Amino acid sequence: MVYDFWYWPTLPGRGDFIRYPLEAAQIPYTDCARDAEDGFAAVAEHLEAKQGCHAFAVPLLETGSESIAQTANILLFLNQEHGLGPSDAAGMRYLNQLQCDIADITEEVHAVHHPISTAFYYEDQRDAAIQSAEKFREQRIPKYLAHFERIANAHDGDWLLEGDSWSTGDTSIAYLLDGLHFMFPLRMAALQSDYPTIHQIQQKTFALEYLDAYRASDRCAAFGTEGIFRNYPELDAA
Amino acid sequence: MVYDFWYWPTLPGRGDFIRYPLEAAQIPYTDCARDAEDGFAAVAEHLEAKQGCHAFAVPLLETGSESIAQTANILLFLNQEHGLGPSDAAGMRYLNQLQCDIADITEEVHAVHHPISTAFYYEDQRDAAIQSAEKFREQRIPKYLAHFERIANAHDGDWLLEGDSWSTGDTSIAYLLDGLHFMFPLRMAALQSDYPTIHQIQQKTFALEYLDAYRASDRCAAFGTEGIFRNYPELDAA
Ligand SMILES: N[C@@H](CCC(=O)N[C@@H](CS)C(=O)NCC(=O)O)C(=O)O
Ligand SMILES: N[C@@H](CCC(=O)N[C@@H](CS)C(=O)NCC(=O)O)C(=O)O
Repeated sequence: MVYDFWYWPTLPGRGDFIRYPLEAAQIPYTDCARDAEDGFAAVAEHLEAKQGCHAFAVPLLETGSESIAQTANILLFLNQEHGLGPSDAAGMRYLNQLQCDIADITEEVHAVHHPISTAFYYEDQRDAAIQSAEKFREQRIPKYLAHFERIANAHDGDWLLEGDSWSTGDTSIAYLLDGLHFMFPLRMAALQSDYPTIHQIQQKTFALEYLDAYRASDRCAAFGTEGIFRNYPELDAA
Repeated sequence: MVYDFWYWPTLPGRGDFIRYPLEAAQIPYTDCARDAEDGFAAVAEHLEAKQGCHAFAVPLLETGSESIAQTANILLFLNQEHGLGPSDAAGMRYLNQLQCDIADITEEVHAVHHPISTAFYYEDQRDAAIQSAEKFREQRIPKYLAHFERIANAHDGDWLLEGDSWSTGDTSIAYLLDGLHFMFPLRMAALQSDYPTIHQIQQKTFALEYLDAYRASDRCAAFGTEGIFRNYPELDAA
């Protein structure tokens, strides 16, 4: 079984929330749009042709019998199907809840640089973005990171959730922190020491053999000024 | 087993996504903040006191052994625990995907009247909201509603998903449409005939005996200018 994975090529975006655990757990997948000649057109055509699969957007994971969309929903499937994370239903629900929290902050990050509409260019809503970024840096980053830090500190284990092995919660936190440090380098440098445990989790996650190899490969796209996490210096401050 | 349900009192907000199926299926619950003297303070105190339950926000459902947050995650639990919706894992994943789509449009609706930050009053970001609302009305409402309409039309059944009985997908679509018609009466009146199936589902759902009783009761809060769905006439147009 080799999954078909669909996401915009050349930008990590929400795609790396899925690629990280696929790579870390060495779950075979084809990155369909990356392997296409014009990957952006391929995604659009695929969503159109597969309207019957009812994905509103990418990321999208196809198993042969199922088309699974929504980042948190895909990760829930991967955890269950590949034995990552908690083995009981309540634990899995709790992990799903955290993935939904991470989806929420991800959406808020995107809204920082596109506060008015995704239909306008960044440059046409920059003044609003500057105001939005200030509140996001002051209020939302600390509120979310304190939340995840509390969760990580609620037990003695090495990972976000109790237990001996990593789950998609760890790969998601690691990726989220990476994105926040890229987008808000000054603010995150000022805050980092307030959230030591999740930063340790990030280090441990990035040290996972196959995730490390993925991140070093040219399959892993760099952050830039496309997608969710973008570095516009005017949106950052300590 | 009587669930403890926590949500801001006096506004339907995201709370009614949960109350609707609880009421329609006659699942016993205590609406803790509604029954409190100062419900807003009670919610804030409860989240603070129960930090160990790790809910980032309300809505929150407590079962005695579990504290479950995130609307889609709570609904997944209710479907599974109370035998609503599909009985197989793939069907339940699909329903969860749709609930995540509904969570996304709900978040976008809120961002229409608070585009820059929830930290500012509506009045202080009204110009941005007017621009945001225009794009939302033109592009996002039709994109989302066409998506749900396609899903409903993909089979012959009476409900959003294939099968003989309603699920939280139906109560969520019904509530979402209700909110959109309240917030954008002109735009939704112009669009309604393009999406007949989901509007029929809304009618059938609202005719469910106990949901009908709930909506007629004083337990069901009216929409207003608090919460997610707000009617500001300047944000609407056909
Ligand atoms: N909550 C969804 C969001 C999906 C999403 O917004 N995907 C983006 C790409 S990262 C997209 O293509 N959106 C198209 C749209 O929203 O119209 C998820 O986590 O999967
Ligand atoms: N995606 C979450 C959103 C939860 C949410 O934003 N809740 C609002 C009330 S409707 C809140 O109190 N948010 C506090 C915050 O975001 O800081 C869900 O669907 O449950």
